[in-house]
Amino acid sequence: MRDLLPGQVATRDWASARILDVYASYGFTRIETPAVENLNVLVGAQGGENEKLIFKILKRGEKLAASDAGEQADLGLRFDLTVPLARYYAHLNAALREPLRAIQIGPVWRAEQPQKGRYRQFTQCDIDILGLASPLAEVELIRATVDALVAVTLSSLVVRVNDRRILIALVQAAGFSDEDAMPVLIALDKMDKIGAAGVSKELLGRGYPDAIVTKFLASVEEMAGRASSPEPSLDWIVNACRGDQAAWTRAGAQVDVRFDPTLVRGMGYYTGPIFEIAASGYPSSIAGGGRYDDMIGRFLGRPVPACGFSIGFERLVEILEEKGDAGARDAGRKKVAILVEPGANDLAPALAYARAERASGGIVIVEPRNAKNAGKQIYQLAVDGFREGRVYKADGSYDDIGALLREKAPA
Amino acid sequence: MRDLLPGQVATRDWASARILDVYASYGFTRIETPAVENLNVLVGAQGGENEKLIFKILKRGEKLAASDAGEQADLGLRFDLTVPLARYYAHLNAALREPLRAIQIGPVWRAEQPQKGRYRQFTQCDIDILGLASPLAEVELIRATVDALVAVTLSSLVVRVNDRRILIALVQAAGFSDEDAMPVLIALDKMDKIGAAGVSKELLGRGYPDAIVTKFLASVEEMAGRASSPEPSLDWIVNACRGDQAAWTRAGAQVDVRFDPTLVRGMGYYTGPIFEIAASGYPSSIAGGGRYDDMIGRFLGRPVPACGFSIGFERLVEILEEKGDAGARDAGRKKVAILVEPGANDLAPALAYARAERASGGIVIVEPRNAKNAGKQIYQLAVDGFREGRVYKADGSYDDIGALLREKAPA
Repeated sequence: MRDLLPGQVATRDWASARILDVYASYGFTRIETPAVENLNVLVGAQGGENEKLIFKILKRGEKLAASDAGEQADLGLRFDLTVPLARYYAHLNAALREPLRAIQIGPVWRAEQPQKGRYRQFTQCDIDILGLASPLAEVELIRATVDALVAVTLSSLVVRVNDRRILIALVQAAGFSDEDAMPVLIALDKMDKIGAAGVSKELLGRGYPDAIVTKFLASVEEMAGRASSPEPSLDWIVNACRGDQAAWTRAGAQVDVRFDPTLVRGMGYYTGPIFEIAASGYPSSIAGGGRYDDMIGRFLGRPVPACGFSIGFERLVEILEEKGDAGARDAGRKKVAILVEPGANDLAPALAYARAERASGGIVIVEPRNAKNAGKQIYQLAVDGFREGRVYKADGSYDDIGALLREKAPA
Repeated sequence: MRDLLPGQVATRDWASARILDVYASYGFTRIETPAVENLNVLVGAQGGENEKLIFKILKRGEKLAASDAGEQADLGLRFDLTVPLARYYAHLNAALREPLRAIQIGPVWRAEQPQKGRYRQFTQCDIDILGLASPLAEVELIRATVDALVAVTLSSLVVRVNDRRILIALVQAAGFSDEDAMPVLIALDKMDKIGAAGVSKELLGRGYPDAIVTKFLASVEEMAGRASSPEPSLDWIVNACRGDQAAWTRAGAQVDVRFDPTLVRGMGYYTGPIFEIAASGYPSSIAGGGRYDDMIGRFLGRPVPACGFSIGFERLVEILEEKGDAGARDAGRKKVAILVEPGANDLAPALAYARAERASGGIVIVEPRNAKNAGKQIYQLAVDGFREGRVYKADGSYDDIGALLREKAPA
């Protein structure tokens, strides 16, 4: 887990504000669930491998004393935002609009081995439309997420779209059994990293017959060559999103929306269209999602169509930090340093000046003048971006130190 | 712990954005620490009663298997933002500006018995200035916090200021022993609820001699009648803050800043000035803080002057919800509903209209027209604040439903 420095938080806040702004314009509203859930909500909730990574919370007081060796924990930290969403929707259903357009942004926790670029607490940023079976949901999710990524200055994006039903049909047509579907698809998912030969090798290594593997990969390749997908509704989604390409171009972004039969997505719960966005020049996707019609309803006891898109917020922030223009985003806001001589009794003139500059949009700090180390103080302020300033003296008069600050400013 | 509905999150986001805006104008920058700390950081960290309320996290895997019965947990959820701040400051000291003006806003957890208005996960919002011994720190913290509360529409505030050193001097002068200081002060803290007679009764009930109790309360009363505090630096702080009263009046707020020798604050770690803000008409304070020069340095191994102010964010949100003008804050933003006939193949005109309205600041939702239950759909949209809309037909033409939506709008 990480401590975040002021500059790191500023980049994150800037990105999340821009993303939330775009999502709000699409009618999404933010909801919140607590970080802690009952363990029985988290376990067995289609969370896959993530369920093994739950941070479990010890029972308290009498409950703990009364517990058997095997039941010391009753709560856990959420490992994603989708499982809590399902519980939330069931719990508050009567108070929620249908369809619900929900934004969730917040930390999740996984007890992974610490490693570079992987954290045990990290932020997820999800939008979901619950209660809408129409593919308009997919179209709005994709457009909103592309708009959000363009708003955080990503200017070259590839949106890949597929459908789990197409994948399942290919698997079945090749001759795999139904229970082989997910393992076969997870191998296919590596196509962009290891190529068709690598996928073939992996499947053969698992003992699948050569004829079936060959037929499967040939059918995937054949489909990848087609101009459109065999699912008309998927074509409709892709075309509707492409309708925005001119608008994205005007906003300075290249966005390529395309059908890709090799797109799989890891989670088992998807039931229809799936999609992923990558930024050109950066490996691994920065957003992914799809339709998962069978999950939300489980807690509620009736079917609820559902579709979501999740931005990998940590990955996005890494890219923004690599791009290195985070500092520039803060530029333009006037920063004013007011230094007060230690002997000053009447603060009124200094504080009135501070108030006036803040009211007109400035960032103003007030601190004692460091008489012993005046040069260091000025230098530090200049480094921190302060370009205007005054030293207030005991009698309420002041010296302007703006020129000095600008002179010391790093090039 | 709580799930938050969209309207509740909107109020919270509105309030935190306004508060953070004001704090940013004072040169504070947001930092973040993880929700989870090592247990040894949380325990024995001057957290007082809160340490008994830590949610402890079970060790994982081999660590758990190897643990004795008494050491099943190694991590815990933070119970406040001050203990993590001290660890953060020690850990990252070399990378931080001194003085550091830090904002922290985020959830903390306490394993309290659930009761009305008390939650086991709740949000704290703290500002702290670390590394500044000058009372300018207190002045800036108080002004910034008053400005923040005025920015969230609280228009009548009382700021009470005292100094722990004044209290300790009164306790000692009356004849109490040094170790009696905190228990005596905690009784004094109830003055506004139970009056001087109640405090006297409580102290006598604990076995303190009548003469000492009487002398102590008389000296507190005598001091409360004075126009100024016996600490010149405290007077300087109060006067400097009062210098802003004209500006607050212009912003439509009545702010009364005053010395109050009965103000105590519960935590043991304060070393100098302490302060609290209450909103007229609401019991219990909504912000509190003070100087705590001996805490931050403990992790760092050298003394670090420190001063902080914490807004009781949950209390503030309760007040805003009671005031009931949360809805009005959203007004003025155009909300547009685009309903698409199920048969529509060409979405381009509908989506182009959506994009144009969003670009000009509107909130736009796109969803299928509910042919079976058209009246209910229109009514629901009107209730949700949609006043403009179009139904797009299969051929790309549309009907304007703005008049209909406005007609159905609740009065």
